[in-house]
Amino acid sequence: MDLKLVGIAAGNPAHLTAAAIEAISQAEVILIPQKGEDKEELSQLRLTLCETFGAGRVIGFDMPVRDPDIADYKTRVNLWHDAIAAAWLHALGALQPGLRVVLLVWGDPSLFDSTLRIAERLRGQMDFTLSVVPGLTSIQLLTAAHAVPLNALAEPFLVTTGRHLRNSGWPAGVDTLVVMLDGDCAFRELDPEGVSIWWGAYLGMPGQILDHGPLSEAGPRIEARRAQARAARGWIMDTYLLRRQRADNAP
Amino acid sequence: MDLKLVGIAAGNPAHLTAAAIEAISQAEVILIPQKGEDKEELSQLRLTLCETFGAGRVIGFDMPVRDPDIADYKTRVNLWHDAIAAAWLHALGALQPGLRVVLLVWGDPSLFDSTLRIAERLRGQMDFTLSVVPGLTSIQLLTAAHAVPLNALAEPFLVTTGRHLRNSGWPAGVDTLVVMLDGDCAFRELDPEGVSIWWGAYLGMPGQILDHGPLSEAGPRIEARRAQARAARGWIMDTYLLRRQRADNAP
Ligand SMILES: C[S@@+](CC[C@H](N)C(=O)[O-])C[C@H]1O[C@@H](n2cnc3c(N)ncnc32)[C@H](O)[C@@H]1O
Ligand SMILES: C[S@@+](CC[C@H](N)C(=O)[O-])C[C@H]1O[C@@H](n2cnc3c(N)ncnc32)[C@H](O)[C@@H]1O
Repeated sequence: MDLKLVGIAAGNPAHLTAAAIEAISQAEVILIPQKGEDKEELSQLRLTLCETFGAGRVIGFDMPVRDPDIADYKTRVNLWHDAIAAAWLHALGALQPGLRVVLLVWGDPSLFDSTLRIAERLRGQMDFTLSVVPGLTSIQLLTAAHAVPLNALAEPFLVTTGRHLRNSGWPAGVDTLVVMLDGDCAFRELDPEGVSIWWGAYLGMPGQILDHGPLSEAGPRIEARRAQARAARGWIMDTYLLRRQRADNAP
Repeated sequence: MDLKLVGIAAGNPAHLTAAAIEAISQAEVILIPQKGEDKEELSQLRLTLCETFGAGRVIGFDMPVRDPDIADYKTRVNLWHDAIAAAWLHALGALQPGLRVVLLVWGDPSLFDSTLRIAERLRGQMDFTLSVVPGLTSIQLLTAAHAVPLNALAEPFLVTTGRHLRNSGWPAGVDTLVVMLDGDCAFRELDPEGVSIWWGAYLGMPGQILDHGPLSEAGPRIEARRAQARAARGWIMDTYLLRRQRADNAP
């Protein structure tokens, strides 16, 4: 089996690369999660890409759910990944060998995504080659939408999660943070003095929302808009950039 | 003027998004640097994209050079950016207003690139709207080529420069680093114990080179390959990912 993980940004065909479109169109099988935790709207976007660019068979697998009884986050996620790998094996194991199989991955397969880790679990269980077709990340959709640089001139930046920011605070020595996987506005707990935020939800999708400004003013506004949008649409995905001002890091 | 900064990854048309191709094809003017510090090979890639997808006029501007007599790095770069903005103004100022102008930017315009900062310098000097079309970064080309995740499961990562890594060492609290703008193999000065490296040069281009392994073994090998490739081709651009092993961050 030739297994390709294809980055599809936020599912807008305009954000796909020519290589991604080619991989989809040449796939003999497109493997798609069914049920599970995914939002109906996201599943629909994925199916639309298959219909628009795909020519092969679409095969579904039943997406397992995480076991809420396992308290430790990483243990819970690792066991969930084991279960997903087993579901793939179940769906792919019966196919003839040598097929070109594609999995569509939100954003880029390298960024806060476990498809690669799950695929590695198949080693030894079936014969396959693994490759990745990169896609635009939500970080790039955020900075492009705001026309803002990611890093200050020649300065580093940290990409982190809401959980890490909440637990460890703003790390020393870095003035730019990108925060992902934040279900609870971790920026609330920061000292807003001298900090600016650039926020985006549903980036690259219909209904994209943007906001930015000094954290002291924009923070509460974003919290309210986020809660409202989430209630109205039933789900939300958002990402933000925080920059702490210093004399010499004006973006 | 409608000024669009368009990310072109490493110039391979397969890595461009449909939105980038559309922006190039609809541009009435494509602004291109002439002379200056750019490699002939890179200029050629850019011209090929203009010829392949562009329909508008290609206008060149003379790329200023950095003043080596200015010792402070940021001062030198900031004055250089002022000079580039002046060169753009010279090239664009005489055009009729309202034109669609495109600038092609390597990788993504948000990542270690100053085109946005330079464009901001035109505010007040000419009337324009500014927008960004995102492109794949060299980081994504690196992780895709190696089929390796950028972050360990739910863990943060720092994107930094060779200069920062050399001056400040490996920062505490983060086990994954992406290093860019490193002309001198800053990984040499790290304690290699428990560290792995994934390295790539000329990513997404003809002649792409990859290497990876434990830093203790791969580091010296990469140094040698880098020096050799650079001598043979006359220039090099490379990026690498470093990951420090911990019990719970196996990628
Ligand atoms: C599991 S990660 C996947 C990231 C994805 N691989 C990428 O490259 O962007 C999910 C997180 O990515 C961010 N995200 C993904 N898609 C987004 C979108 N369309 N708008 C805003 N944030 C998004 C959110 O922070 C979300 O919590
Ligand atoms: C001025 S920055 C531009 C980065 C670019 N905007 C991006 O999104 O990748 C130049 C640095 O990017 C990295 N880089 C750019 N193109 C590359 C390539 N084709 N292969 C490897 N590294 C590259 C190198 O670390 C180089 O020093």
